[in-house]
Amino acid sequence: MQMNPNRDTQLCMSLSGRPGNFGLRFHNHLYEQLGLNFYYKAFSSQDLPGAVGGIRALGIRGCGVSMPFKEACIALVDELDPSAAAIQSINTIVNTDGHLKAFNTDYIAIAQLLQTHQVSKDTTFALLGSGGMAKAVASALRDGGYRDGLIVARNERAGQALAQSLGYPWQAELGEQRPQMLINVTPIGMTGPHAEQLAFDAHAIAAADIVFDVVAVPAETPLIVRARTEGKHVITGLEVIAIQALEQFVLYTGVRPTDEQFQKAVEFARSSLAY
Amino acid sequence: MQMNPNRDTQLCMSLSGRPGNFGLRFHNHLYEQLGLNFYYKAFSSQDLPGAVGGIRALGIRGCGVSMPFKEACIALVDELDPSAAAIQSINTIVNTDGHLKAFNTDYIAIAQLLQTHQVSKDTTFALLGSGGMAKAVASALRDGGYRDGLIVARNERAGQALAQSLGYPWQAELGEQRPQMLINVTPIGMTGPHAEQLAFDAHAIAAADIVFDVVAVPAETPLIVRARTEGKHVITGLEVIAIQALEQFVLYTGVRPTDEQFQKAVEFARSSLAY
Repeated sequence: MQMNPNRDTQLCMSLSGRPGNFGLRFHNHLYEQLGLNFYYKAFSSQDLPGAVGGIRALGIRGCGVSMPFKEACIALVDELDPSAAAIQSINTIVNTDGHLKAFNTDYIAIAQLLQTHQVSKDTTFALLGSGGMAKAVASALRDGGYRDGLIVARNERAGQALAQSLGYPWQAELGEQRPQMLINVTPIGMTGPHAEQLAFDAHAIAAADIVFDVVAVPAETPLIVRARTEGKHVITGLEVIAIQALEQFVLYTGVRPTDEQFQKAVEFARSSLAY
Repeated sequence: MQMNPNRDTQLCMSLSGRPGNFGLRFHNHLYEQLGLNFYYKAFSSQDLPGAVGGIRALGIRGCGVSMPFKEACIALVDELDPSAAAIQSINTIVNTDGHLKAFNTDYIAIAQLLQTHQVSKDTTFALLGSGGMAKAVASALRDGGYRDGLIVARNERAGQALAQSLGYPWQAELGEQRPQMLINVTPIGMTGPHAEQLAFDAHAIAAADIVFDVVAVPAETPLIVRARTEGKHVITGLEVIAIQALEQFVLYTGVRPTDEQFQKAVEFARSSLAY
């Protein structure tokens, strides 16, 4: 499927504890469609400094960074883009002649989605979660001017820390509140032990206008399925991982695919996601 | 041309000051022909320890090492195969779960070629050259039991050092001697400033039985052309680079291609060699 490799082929890669296939299928598919002399390879590592040193020494053009390396990588790069500085978490390294600049395209993708879905800034929201991705989503909301929100997290310490750092209130449970936008940034509904669970209760869903689930596998979580059934405006985790991958692609290659090329790459890549 | 890359794809690579296309075309062609989930990428680097650290940290399966890294790499690996220890020069690293073992498949290829061309051990020879490849060739001859040889090199210090280390005499010029096998391990006849030159004089060629030119680009050097014209048994540099690449391939993948597969890969790869 690739064009013939030669000595000028540029390598991009991912680094994660458990490599998946989505990113490498997405990027390699677009390289082929656009005739770009790049190749994308997924790596894991037990030695993060050695791996980042290798990116530098071998002139690897770009690297997607996933769990558990998103914070530890910060000390190993030369410059943080505002998208990464805002949340002190990186998911993308761009290597320009040995200078490593780090980005967070999850943050960029969330900000874009709020715009393209025309989510009004006075929308009230509840964000469920307190992990690294919750920080990216909540920061994009705060920086996007969404003031009337609420962090909901059972983990009190993490939830309060996240809420306070961004100026939102924290609650352990949503309770009787009925925000206009519900955002799930926990593993609830994800393939695995929580696959059958609904991240928000039925009354909250019924009362909401917009339901945003960051879970990407499956894209049609119980939450999304229910929200669709009730005619809610939905934003899915597949959109998040697709757009964050697209923005990585643009950073690495300097080329922005057409929307049709992008959609085809998403279709090609998502077939690798386990349901 | 590659099979669809996925997260299990293994990377092999080369590291050299000026990457070529032969190795990556040879290996990638065979991966495809044999259905092996590997990809081969050529790298250069200004930071050898960082590059070798990257091989280790990223679990890159194998690395071909070329000028100017063949000696400096020794301190960075964990184990030397006898082929590399014999000449204190490596051209191949095999990474098995983070343990880096270094080989010299040039040495292995020369030894193989002396056998397959059925060069009798009492053949007298003159080897022209005193660089790293001359060391590999002379060591393979010495270790193969070829005792009646002569090192010819204008560089007195390097020539004497090589000759003494292996127990051969050294001369600055061949003079009137007429060995049965003439071996060129200098750039004479190689594409570039010495392309038109004949490595040995016409009288020596006329008197020889076997002419072995390690120059691979072009494979048909003036020396080889002349030797063929005079009906001599010839051994070419293309055979050396092809067999050394084959032995790398076997070390990396554990799979030995058929002779037909090997020959096709050589034909595919050699089309990238500049003539």
